[in-house]
Amino acid sequence: MTTSSMSGALSIDDLDVVKPRFLASDNTSGICPQAMAYLIRANQLDDLAYGNDEWTERAAEHFRTLFETDCEIFFVFNGTAANSLALASLCQSYHSVISHQLAHIETDECGGPEFFSNGSKLLTVEGAHGKVTPEGIERMVTRRSDIHYPRPKVVSLTQATEVGTVYSLDELKAIREVADRHDLRIHMDGARFANACAALEVSPADITWRAGVDVLCFSGTKNGLAFGEAIIFFDRGMALDFEYRCKQAGQLASKMRFMTAPWLGLLENDVWLDNARHANAMATRLASGAAELGIHTMFPAQANSVFLELPAATIEGLRARGWTFYTFIGEGGVRLVCSWNTSTELIDSLLGDLEEVLAQNGR
Amino acid sequence: MTTSSMSGALSIDDLDVVKPRFLASDNTSGICPQAMAYLIRANQLDDLAYGNDEWTERAAEHFRTLFETDCEIFFVFNGTAANSLALASLCQSYHSVISHQLAHIETDECGGPEFFSNGSKLLTVEGAHGKVTPEGIERMVTRRSDIHYPRPKVVSLTQATEVGTVYSLDELKAIREVADRHDLRIHMDGARFANACAALEVSPADITWRAGVDVLCFSGTKNGLAFGEAIIFFDRGMALDFEYRCKQAGQLASKMRFMTAPWLGLLENDVWLDNARHANAMATRLASGAAELGIHTMFPAQANSVFLELPAATIEGLRARGWTFYTFIGEGGVRLVCSWNTSTELIDSLLGDLEEVLAQNGR
Amino acid sequence: MTTSSMSGALSIDDLDVVKPRFLASDNTSGICPQAMAYLIRANQLDDLAYGNDEWTERAAEHFRTLFETDCEIFFVFNGTAANSLALASLCQSYHSVISHQLAHIETDECGGPEFFSNGSKLLTVEGAHGKVTPEGIERMVTRRSDIHYPRPKVVSLTQATEVGTVYSLDELKAIREVADRHDLRIHMDGARFANACAALEVSPADITWRAGVDVLCFSGTKNGLAFGEAIIFFDRGMALDFEYRCKQAGQLASKMRFMTAPWLGLLENDVWLDNARHANAMATRLASGAAELGIHTMFPAQANSVFLELPAATIEGLRARGWTFYTFIGEGGVRLVCSWNTSTELIDSLLGDLEEVLAQNGR
Amino acid sequence: MTTSSMSGALSIDDLDVVKPRFLASDNTSGICPQAMAYLIRANQLDDLAYGNDEWTERAAEHFRTLFETDCEIFFVFNGTAANSLALASLCQSYHSVISHQLAHIETDECGGPEFFSNGSKLLTVEGAHGKVTPEGIERMVTRRSDIHYPRPKVVSLTQATEVGTVYSLDELKAIREVADRHDLRIHMDGARFANACAALEVSPADITWRAGVDVLCFSGTKNGLAFGEAIIFFDRGMALDFEYRCKQAGQLASKMRFMTAPWLGLLENDVWLDNARHANAMATRLASGAAELGIHTMFPAQANSVFLELPAATIEGLRARGWTFYTFIGEGGVRLVCSWNTSTELIDSLLGDLEEVLAQNGR
Repeated sequence: MTTSSMSGALSIDDLDVVKPRFLASDNTSGICPQAMAYLIRANQLDDLAYGNDEWTERAAEHFRTLFETDCEIFFVFNGTAANSLALASLCQSYHSVISHQLAHIETDECGGPEFFSNGSKLLTVEGAHGKVTPEGIERMVTRRSDIHYPRPKVVSLTQATEVGTVYSLDELKAIREVADRHDLRIHMDGARFANACAALEVSPADITWRAGVDVLCFSGTKNGLAFGEAIIFFDRGMALDFEYRCKQAGQLASKMRFMTAPWLGLLENDVWLDNARHANAMATRLASGAAELGIHTMFPAQANSVFLELPAATIEGLRARGWTFYTFIGEGGVRLVCSWNTSTELIDSLLGDLEEVLAQNGR
Repeated sequence: MTTSSMSGALSIDDLDVVKPRFLASDNTSGICPQAMAYLIRANQLDDLAYGNDEWTERAAEHFRTLFETDCEIFFVFNGTAANSLALASLCQSYHSVISHQLAHIETDECGGPEFFSNGSKLLTVEGAHGKVTPEGIERMVTRRSDIHYPRPKVVSLTQATEVGTVYSLDELKAIREVADRHDLRIHMDGARFANACAALEVSPADITWRAGVDVLCFSGTKNGLAFGEAIIFFDRGMALDFEYRCKQAGQLASKMRFMTAPWLGLLENDVWLDNARHANAMATRLASGAAELGIHTMFPAQANSVFLELPAATIEGLRARGWTFYTFIGEGGVRLVCSWNTSTELIDSLLGDLEEVLAQNGR
Repeated sequence: MTTSSMSGALSIDDLDVVKPRFLASDNTSGICPQAMAYLIRANQLDDLAYGNDEWTERAAEHFRTLFETDCEIFFVFNGTAANSLALASLCQSYHSVISHQLAHIETDECGGPEFFSNGSKLLTVEGAHGKVTPEGIERMVTRRSDIHYPRPKVVSLTQATEVGTVYSLDELKAIREVADRHDLRIHMDGARFANACAALEVSPADITWRAGVDVLCFSGTKNGLAFGEAIIFFDRGMALDFEYRCKQAGQLASKMRFMTAPWLGLLENDVWLDNARHANAMATRLASGAAELGIHTMFPAQANSVFLELPAATIEGLRARGWTFYTFIGEGGVRLVCSWNTSTELIDSLLGDLEEVLAQNGR
Repeated sequence: MTTSSMSGALSIDDLDVVKPRFLASDNTSGICPQAMAYLIRANQLDDLAYGNDEWTERAAEHFRTLFETDCEIFFVFNGTAANSLALASLCQSYHSVISHQLAHIETDECGGPEFFSNGSKLLTVEGAHGKVTPEGIERMVTRRSDIHYPRPKVVSLTQATEVGTVYSLDELKAIREVADRHDLRIHMDGARFANACAALEVSPADITWRAGVDVLCFSGTKNGLAFGEAIIFFDRGMALDFEYRCKQAGQLASKMRFMTAPWLGLLENDVWLDNARHANAMATRLASGAAELGIHTMFPAQANSVFLELPAATIEGLRARGWTFYTFIGEGGVRLVCSWNTSTELIDSLLGDLEEVLAQNGR
């Protein structure tokens, strides 16, 4: 390890020299330089614990500016906790949460929402392109109204969705309308919220509270932090005593500054947005290149994920060349996720390999 | 911010130049250089998520070597989670956990153990020097045996204790003996486990599994990490499916390597032990100096915490000079905690201020 | 109210004189005479609380004789509690329970199983005639094996099913085989267990532990009690500390004898079986009569429930004549449930009304 | 068993002929004649399930009349459930409940409140005569205000207390005053609420909502029912969706009428009050008689429990003569509880035995 490799100021180019062929998820990427710089700054001096340091309030204030409203912000370690705690604060154990059947809270959090809420049921609905529809919510709310089934209380939306699409402003407002009719609160799983903002070219305020979102879980981890999600309550009343909830649930960091200072690295100079734009651009490049090769894309690649329909032999061929990715969406579906440090070289290298493997397989 | 200040390789001396007067807790200190170096190394390349990276298994293996046994290790974000999840795995909701009345799980985790276990009751006992005694356990177990009260199932010990003392090997073995008689499991809250090892000059194996401890929560945060506790099961059978428990409870880091690689910085070359020895030495220096000033120490300063009995005016005087500390143990009791980066200058400066303040107050 | 009407010794005939037209569920029926007689006997003398009376152990012993094995029995108030507590004892919060999508635990217990288990997920499968199949279990267990999804640990079967069918001995054994392969425990929701025994003409032992069932919830309420379900553990090891679980969960009756003495009324002289046989016979009479009227039965009427496919106008016509029933299974599906006190006159009267209403509606 | 013994209309005298020597608790008594009469009446006809019958609303309406306010009433099976569900509805898992250290919720519900609330902590206070004091509450609320400890949200009072004393109107109002100052809700465990009303000779309204009680758990079981507690919310807003909570928690009886019709037997003609007055009178008779024998009473016998201080040999002597009672309050403390069917003969017989045993023991 050279002295230079010890420096925190690594550039994307440096990393690419030795970058492995990871497109499995945006969480295989590391800490972006601006976040790392703040991590190191926050380490220069001792500071008070539990968020009473000089960084945490600054980060919270930055969020308030970004969202153009006096919201309440809490910082927790990861996405399962962020979503689960937010949902638990919006409903009781005998209520239910309506989400898409592909939502992360349903498919990949090992029952976290049920655990933190002490039993709230997730009611899943179908919907094209991974999106919950007003009709789906309406149907789920109205099919039963007896006390033998948990009463729907929350709609959870993932923005961008698990399949790389985004809810438009109009779609969000239509969902808010049906939610209002049935007294439902809206939670937004923003694991890739930055990518949605970048894709839609709208302000964070416009696609959250101005469109009726009550609580947003904004992921820092997938945007370039080591750890850290911000839970943002746009209605402060809903956040009552939420700091106790975090503490009890093992989500209050004692050395909080190492989570919140890096957030400043993302928030200052709109690094979060640049990171997301870059990731989205890489996904677009990948989707376009794949289309040129005649490969079918399963969902519109609106954010930073691309889902390709590939023959089994092709999938195997790519894996043999060292590419890592998931195939969990249906038969032959390959998910490729771009991130803040995905390089054009990596994408082009994948496209080159794809072309070769397809050719080898006689296509 | 200079280039040099961006480097991760900060020495303790550099920090001391601008060090604030923090003795409130060992969690006001930052990341130690060796941990930071590994954090930066782990950031050079992308890697697989959820612990399938190149660092996590290495860290686990290091723990196995350190503890001289084939134990099972899990890495979680903080101490509340570590203790709560460990306890939840040792008992059911209708069981109870015996701990000292000053134990952190009782006094400072906001009901975390009750939450994660879905209702297990903490039964607290008194005991000199913050220590649970075999007699205390015996009394608590035998006073009732009906189903109207939660059945004791676990003893939780804090090593070093909340008041800066340590359980000796003999004390631990006597507790194991009574635990065996009543079919109780032993959990060790090792928030300051390193300090206890340093104080007792015994091997980690000797004061854990060889002394009958079933599960240890070994704190990295207080020893020099940004975040991170290791839950160590000495009986692998007790760890069955514990990885699911962590995941569901929001304690599985996606970018796990940023928690586990820094552990390597602590484990290699016994940095963890050096950090602890240094902290303990600073506490000893402080306690001795205070004794010379005629100040009464409330508990033997065996690890890295010192509890001084000070007049209210003296406490106020120290605070006026910028010292931060807690006074939560009784009237006039001041807790001062040393850490891996507490300097002799800081201790001597405190002692000097103490002397001056006492003099001013006419003592 | 005459003196005679005050007597507990009401016969079915007496009741029929004024019986309303209830076929909504077997829980609209009252307490059967033999159970009432025991209730009154248990009220003649004071007795010890919490099951330490003279009746509870007798009832438990009777169950052991009936099931021909040294099983462990617990008495709780209702079916939601029985199922939820049994399931909670078979898995942890991060595990999952495989059941049919029409199972009562999924559709009608308001998230009770999730609440009592602190978050265990129900994984529902389809299956003809309301029955879980070995293939359905296999598919659900093998589709994922990662820690991001709750690990399957239990199969829950409803016997007789929610749609009035029964699992044969062979079907149960095939399920046990797949359960063994995947280390799954089997819970049987016996809300209508008596009806299944009557339908299959097999011994209780044969369709429970001898067929691989680990825990049975045997409903007394639907068989003629006011309140009361027996949770029967065939493996005593699985029942460890279960009495604490019941107590903590608000399911330990202080005046236990008023639940357990009436069980003796059902268990002595096989009243439970006679009650079930009668209910099944009434269902058969209804199904046959409906068939003669050309009405399609949605599921084979193997136990005490009959599901008729009726035009909306016919449903309305029956309701106008005072009949109560549920229509919750699909469009036009009517559920009619017979019980220990359903009379032939009631069935024939319904069939008569059905014929008339159909005729009026021009069929 | 004779025909006559089958009748539900047993008188207290009939029972006394064969009455065992039970003074262990008021739950060793059976069902009072008026409740039994209604149980039998409710069994004459089938009726709708889950409280949609003809009795449940009548019982609720009766409570509204009795309490002179439009309160919301829920009927559950037992006291652990009633208290736990009520408390869970008044606080979240990260809140705490202040109660007396002898409160049933602390000492005899096996962690039920912690379980149903998913972890709320009980903070116990001392207080003469088993009563919480305003000072005790004040001290508990103000000693900490950080997020590391569950925030107090509820005060739970037991009326009559576990040691047979009662809170006066003034005492209740003083507690309400401190509760208002700290935004605390007041829960009343009314396991022996009837006895308190009888003792204080005040209306139910006066010692509940008019004195600031938010939720009352009114025990029917101890007053003469087989099973059944009424949870009464004086503020309907606090009862929002509580019916779902009951259902999910296994506390919605399908054959609800067998719990609610007997309540009518208690409520009509103030039977509940007569039952309580009788029990109290028996306790007074016992306490007076004991005083004449020179026996010290540990607490004022204001309701239906008497606590005598007896030598160990005397306790043994009474047990040898068949008397059943608990000795759980301290060394040599004997608890004797009278109920609706405790006869003067039983009390006098006990006093006679006491005198003899004392004499035998040379006193």
